[in-house]
Amino acid sequence: MKLTSRNLDQRLDTLYDAVIAGGGAGGLSAAIYLARYGLKCLVIEKGKGRSMWMQELRNYVGLDPHTPGRDLLKQGTTAALGWGADHLRAFVDKVTDQGDYLEVQVNVGKTHPTAVTFKAKYLIAATGIIDILPELENMQNVYDYAGYTLHVCMICDGFDMWDQKAILIAAREPQIEAAFVLNWFTPYITVLTDGKFPVSEAMKTRLQAHGYPLIETPIARFLGENHQLQGVEFTDGTRIEVTTGLVNMGSIYHNHYLKAIPELTWDGENLVTDEFCQTTHPRIFALGDLKKGVNQVAIAVADGCLAATKIWRTIRRSQPPRIWVEQVPNPAAEPLPAG
Amino acid sequence: MKLTSRNLDQRLDTLYDAVIAGGGAGGLSAAIYLARYGLKCLVIEKGKGRSMWMQELRNYVGLDPHTPGRDLLKQGTTAALGWGADHLRAFVDKVTDQGDYLEVQVNVGKTHPTAVTFKAKYLIAATGIIDILPELENMQNVYDYAGYTLHVCMICDGFDMWDQKAILIAAREPQIEAAFVLNWFTPYITVLTDGKFPVSEAMKTRLQAHGYPLIETPIARFLGENHQLQGVEFTDGTRIEVTTGLVNMGSIYHNHYLKAIPELTWDGENLVTDEFCQTTHPRIFALGDLKKGVNQVAIAVADGCLAATKIWRTIRRSQPPRIWVEQVPNPAAEPLPAG
Repeated sequence: MKLTSRNLDQRLDTLYDAVIAGGGAGGLSAAIYLARYGLKCLVIEKGKGRSMWMQELRNYVGLDPHTPGRDLLKQGTTAALGWGADHLRAFVDKVTDQGDYLEVQVNVGKTHPTAVTFKAKYLIAATGIIDILPELENMQNVYDYAGYTLHVCMICDGFDMWDQKAILIAAREPQIEAAFVLNWFTPYITVLTDGKFPVSEAMKTRLQAHGYPLIETPIARFLGENHQLQGVEFTDGTRIEVTTGLVNMGSIYHNHYLKAIPELTWDGENLVTDEFCQTTHPRIFALGDLKKGVNQVAIAVADGCLAATKIWRTIRRSQPPRIWVEQVPNPAAEPLPAG
Repeated sequence: MKLTSRNLDQRLDTLYDAVIAGGGAGGLSAAIYLARYGLKCLVIEKGKGRSMWMQELRNYVGLDPHTPGRDLLKQGTTAALGWGADHLRAFVDKVTDQGDYLEVQVNVGKTHPTAVTFKAKYLIAATGIIDILPELENMQNVYDYAGYTLHVCMICDGFDMWDQKAILIAAREPQIEAAFVLNWFTPYITVLTDGKFPVSEAMKTRLQAHGYPLIETPIARFLGENHQLQGVEFTDGTRIEVTTGLVNMGSIYHNHYLKAIPELTWDGENLVTDEFCQTTHPRIFALGDLKKGVNQVAIAVADGCLAATKIWRTIRRSQPPRIWVEQVPNPAAEPLPAG
């Protein structure tokens, strides 16, 4: 059922089998599996996740390579609702461990948010990450290219940069290392710091040895049209001509609501999980980009299947078996032979 | 490129980065990723795999739940070819370890098969399994229901059996255990042995305690129309009325071509792999149903991504970096500021 601020009070007494924080590819996959296992689940989706920004999902078997991320999300949401999952547009604020269950506090509504609390046996954390983009005065200029010809994921889009003149934008020196992987796809790489950090002599020497120019002047704007990057203009008025780029400025992890749970194990900002995406807190699972591993739609979708399957197994094994108490009358049938 | 017996001689001298045995969901995912990493790969597909039989793929995010498996395979094959993978309809017969590479011997053509050998740095084993079905005199009668209302996968289709009168068909006593999981979805279970094996008193007692009838008479035919199961008729003329069923008679593993490789580690018929689907032979990866784990399309697709990514990383790290030897002339650009 689609929940809104008007009908969600019907669910405040529900003990969900699982609340899924995040309605991206992983969260929706978990919801579809949980619902098809006959378990009660609620997807809480804040909107504007990473897959929402994908212009074309090129590497996911079954979908036309021109399918935008939003189509995947729309289909997945419809399917999850269709199989019986609940779905609410809201922001997960806080998770509190109550021993036998978890309390998930969410904010509903943007201008005057209302805090409401749901109860769940399990939490599936699938809130993902969002890529940090260069902060220009005119952010629309960034959005005109980001996700089109200015990429954020080398695994997804390296192919589309093949032998093109490319920029690599970093926010800290270690992120420049990506140039030495990106060169698999193209060696024509110019590294930009956007004037945000100093570059060591050692790194400058390495870049020079590879023939990769380094520009430390702040970016003024991206040049091009119809989402096709054609160049970069810097604040000193200089320009370079490039047709593609990779933004490697790090990510914001949507994991604040988990930081107060002491049982969780972290590797940097990633949650450590087992082969079923279960964290070191037995009631909390983490999917996709939030956990350690490869950040890909295909991985998140499989993670949703694994987490849901483990939750189903655990709940199923904790319950008494259903027996065939009263044999359903079956007048059309011949008598059964002796068992 | 689509290879056939007419043009495959063009590829007999090629050292592929990877040959993928099996063009199901996992193999196609691997091919799409490998091709987009710019690696040379060949998919060898024998046809009629497990996903080909799926009438509706209900739990894969992004596809309408009525999508048949064959549509997924068709789209994936087109996409893999589009990104540059090779594809050949043939049967993988034998894999030989030549140290620096593998030889993959395949049979092309059905009536007069020709044996040809491809060379590859890596093999991705994605040939999957096929479910064993009851062997009736009229197999068309089995195919009329299998994959529609007579299911082979409880995770996929348990939901569709909810509280219905169901049969569980086993080929060996341990397979009857599935009844005690299937009862999550429905307790109205009749267990059939098709007259193929004796059932121990201990198992009979357990079934009786759950109220699940056991029928040991051979099956004569399935009853129903338009793929909707309505009952089962036995060889003694008796009938029961059921609307759904689960066939749990085991699987045939398409892994014969790997049995002579001594470095592989097996768990029964499943290959043991690491978190990137790499087997204990460093040049061989195994995906989906061939490896240990959950048998689901979503898992196989993620496996393809993981195996391809690991192969890409290994090949990339073994090669010298591409440097920007000659800066591409760029007359429109202003001079670069000093790096």
